[in-house]
Amino acid sequence: MDLDELVRPILDLLHRADDRDARITDLAGPDAHEDAFARLGVPLSLGPGDEPLDLAALTRAIEATIARSVRTLHPRFFNQNFAGADPIAVIGDFLGAALNTTLATYEAAPVFTLMERAVLARLAALAGWPAHEGLFVPGGSFSNLHALQLARLRVDPEARERGHDGAPLVAFTSAHAHYSLKKAVVLLGLGRRALVEVACDERGQMRPEALAAAIDASRARGERPFFVNATAGTTVLGGFDPLPALADLAERHDLWLHVDGSFGASALFSVAQAHRMEGVARADSLAWNLHKMLGVTQQCAAFLVQKTGTLRAAFATGAEYLFQPDKPHADLDSGDLTFQCARRVDALKAWLTWKARGEAGFAARIDHAVALADHAAARIAGDRRFLLAAPPSWVNVCFWWIPPDLRPLAARTPEVDATLHALAPRIKAAMLRGGAAMLGFQPIDGGPNCFRLLFINPATRREDVDATLDILDACGREALA
Amino acid sequence: MDLDELVRPILDLLHRADDRDARITDLAGPDAHEDAFARLGVPLSLGPGDEPLDLAALTRAIEATIARSVRTLHPRFFNQNFAGADPIAVIGDFLGAALNTTLATYEAAPVFTLMERAVLARLAALAGWPAHEGLFVPGGSFSNLHALQLARLRVDPEARERGHDGAPLVAFTSAHAHYSLKKAVVLLGLGRRALVEVACDERGQMRPEALAAAIDASRARGERPFFVNATAGTTVLGGFDPLPALADLAERHDLWLHVDGSFGASALFSVAQAHRMEGVARADSLAWNLHKMLGVTQQCAAFLVQKTGTLRAAFATGAEYLFQPDKPHADLDSGDLTFQCARRVDALKAWLTWKARGEAGFAARIDHAVALADHAAARIAGDRRFLLAAPPSWVNVCFWWIPPDLRPLAARTPEVDATLHALAPRIKAAMLRGGAAMLGFQPIDGGPNCFRLLFINPATRREDVDATLDILDACGREALA
Repeated sequence: MDLDELVRPILDLLHRADDRDARITDLAGPDAHEDAFARLGVPLSLGPGDEPLDLAALTRAIEATIARSVRTLHPRFFNQNFAGADPIAVIGDFLGAALNTTLATYEAAPVFTLMERAVLARLAALAGWPAHEGLFVPGGSFSNLHALQLARLRVDPEARERGHDGAPLVAFTSAHAHYSLKKAVVLLGLGRRALVEVACDERGQMRPEALAAAIDASRARGERPFFVNATAGTTVLGGFDPLPALADLAERHDLWLHVDGSFGASALFSVAQAHRMEGVARADSLAWNLHKMLGVTQQCAAFLVQKTGTLRAAFATGAEYLFQPDKPHADLDSGDLTFQCARRVDALKAWLTWKARGEAGFAARIDHAVALADHAAARIAGDRRFLLAAPPSWVNVCFWWIPPDLRPLAARTPEVDATLHALAPRIKAAMLRGGAAMLGFQPIDGGPNCFRLLFINPATRREDVDATLDILDACGREALA
Repeated sequence: MDLDELVRPILDLLHRADDRDARITDLAGPDAHEDAFARLGVPLSLGPGDEPLDLAALTRAIEATIARSVRTLHPRFFNQNFAGADPIAVIGDFLGAALNTTLATYEAAPVFTLMERAVLARLAALAGWPAHEGLFVPGGSFSNLHALQLARLRVDPEARERGHDGAPLVAFTSAHAHYSLKKAVVLLGLGRRALVEVACDERGQMRPEALAAAIDASRARGERPFFVNATAGTTVLGGFDPLPALADLAERHDLWLHVDGSFGASALFSVAQAHRMEGVARADSLAWNLHKMLGVTQQCAAFLVQKTGTLRAAFATGAEYLFQPDKPHADLDSGDLTFQCARRVDALKAWLTWKARGEAGFAARIDHAVALADHAAARIAGDRRFLLAAPPSWVNVCFWWIPPDLRPLAARTPEVDATLHALAPRIKAAMLRGGAAMLGFQPIDGGPNCFRLLFINPATRREDVDATLDILDACGREALA
């Protein structure tokens, strides 16, 4: 099989990453995609009698997949908390797949084990931690899950053997934190009621006085507070919880302090932005996704713990077939530090991208994104077609499109809110049909659906902001019609 | 940056996948690897002042990574429950990385959503299930975790809100099952004591009468049995638990029946091997890793549930920023069916490999592996240098190397066992230094360390069995010396 032939369309995609004329998506329905693949002789369905495809058909399948998938490399793709994959990271993923191994043991992954340790060591140094342990996990949700499990076992080590006994352990997180915290308390058998959501300010940042009150109220109910999740870079508003104040409270009340920096910890690369992470040196654990701001491909999620020995005590089972203590360099085996068995070598692409760009390159990526967000917010604030939904923060800009007959919008009323809320999905649908820009929408704190620009891709320029706002305005008019 | 240049060594590796003269590994220590990378001008460590690497240095880094990593493509790599990655799957991983998206929503991954559904539908059909739901998760450990969580919520739905209340829920698995079950009960807050290990026969297959007795004993203790894990293809011996008998017991005692077919479910592709999976049609859930027997790259783990609606009821939180119910095709969003948020598009490489090979190609891969294992077992049984440690099953062959002065070994004594046990790591170390073959060792049921051949790579031939046995004999003599 001529592999070069199959790789060609993938390399073409990477070479034309910033092609602004390419459609981002057309959000065809399932039937349209299935018809298109079937017409190419490569139906999406699988059946027992299917003949193996030849090279030409496989190439058509790859080309169709590229043409019909969402183009997250496009400079006007603002839809998720990742964008603009670095081609070096893409090649790192390719290399990792070709060497197809598991990071569970040094024996099976000597170079990758060392790369993982190098990346984690430098991340921990950037956080100002004198000691650390950690590993890459399949996403920030798992980092948060691991943190909660470590914190639970710290206050109730017997839970490992005995299980949760129904004691009212309580974790705190902000109302704007990632939903994985809600999923995690359920999975861990602590129950949804074990998670208290604390109020935020208008930037989506936890109010420390609200946390203090929530802890006191929990204690007054006879519960046992054990954990606080501080979000560094909330998903929707880009808020950074005030880490020093939260660290003070965690210390005072003997809580595990986890910083979910999945989105925002990369601020530490930028001299201008690192202040947002002030206080992270006092965290017990840290989630840091290199696949969000830094352009490393899905997934590349570092989970770090400050106190060494914690992970092994929580997760190790010492499977004899894998972690033979008498084989060479068994002390470097990472598999028993986590829940997973086989682990992808996500550290490789992080390491390769880091080597290719340097910390200055990462910093430039962050600074570019923040500068563009600031520009977009200023631009929107001065444009009567739109209304900012929240003060800008980090790389997030949330705003409404205002229908022409409501401009300039003097005050939001329940009627206006209902209009804005109902318009968002229709505007989005029009935008997806057009395929020239893509951004998401959601309600904030019970308000009407607003749009959210996320600046992450280094190829995005100021003109793209203008173009996207014009596209949004046109889609709004289309949705009204 | 000339991406073609960076991709060249990766394609070379794939083109020379079955090069028998290449070293599999030399298991250098960390210092040797670090020195080697440093000499190339690409030190493994990362520092704040590092200059970005140029193309030539990045190429050297990629070449060194290939040269110094374990060559799992080598036909004499028998060390793990995966081997011989299919180059089509590798390219699928490359394509997925280039298109860098998340499978959480149809909007962000329309084609991949449909590919995932197509792959899962055909897997479910092969299992004989009339209905199903499911998704790809980052490894079989997560499939098993999900199954346990679904089973727990079936008998205690209030645990979602309330948490585990200390009720003595008990799960059963075999003594040869994967260690992820032990990790899962701890993570779920059920505790290690909630997992009862049931005795196996000499092939590592759960004894149904032992399970029946264990359930009765548990009930007699006043506990609540709720779950049984049946392993289809144990990690070490390749044993298949007797699914029909276990399904009978599960039905009688109202237990959730999960089949961990991570390793063995692919037997369903082979007419000759499918009988091992008889009874899987009665399972509530099924783990099926396409990255083990089928050569799809790490990771490609399908988790299937027979009763639809189960996953959403257990995992959904309905995050407003992601799962807007009013956007187009929101019913196809898969993100709320699992614990993860962003998910890699693992289904893509499965789909592409499946299209390239067809089910006949997958069946041939299975049949080749089983035939080679049978050949190796017969070969070892007739060779006084070795002794089978267990009857052969599936693609696993476990055996000891017998030192010359003990041949032919008439009977194992405690002294002989101690010798065999201590020799294994020394033989393995010699084998790693040689780099011409690689297999693992472990004790079985408290016996001395034995070696384990795992036949998975379609490029492996009978000559490789002979060569590996000769290498092992030479390494044994080296270890004795």
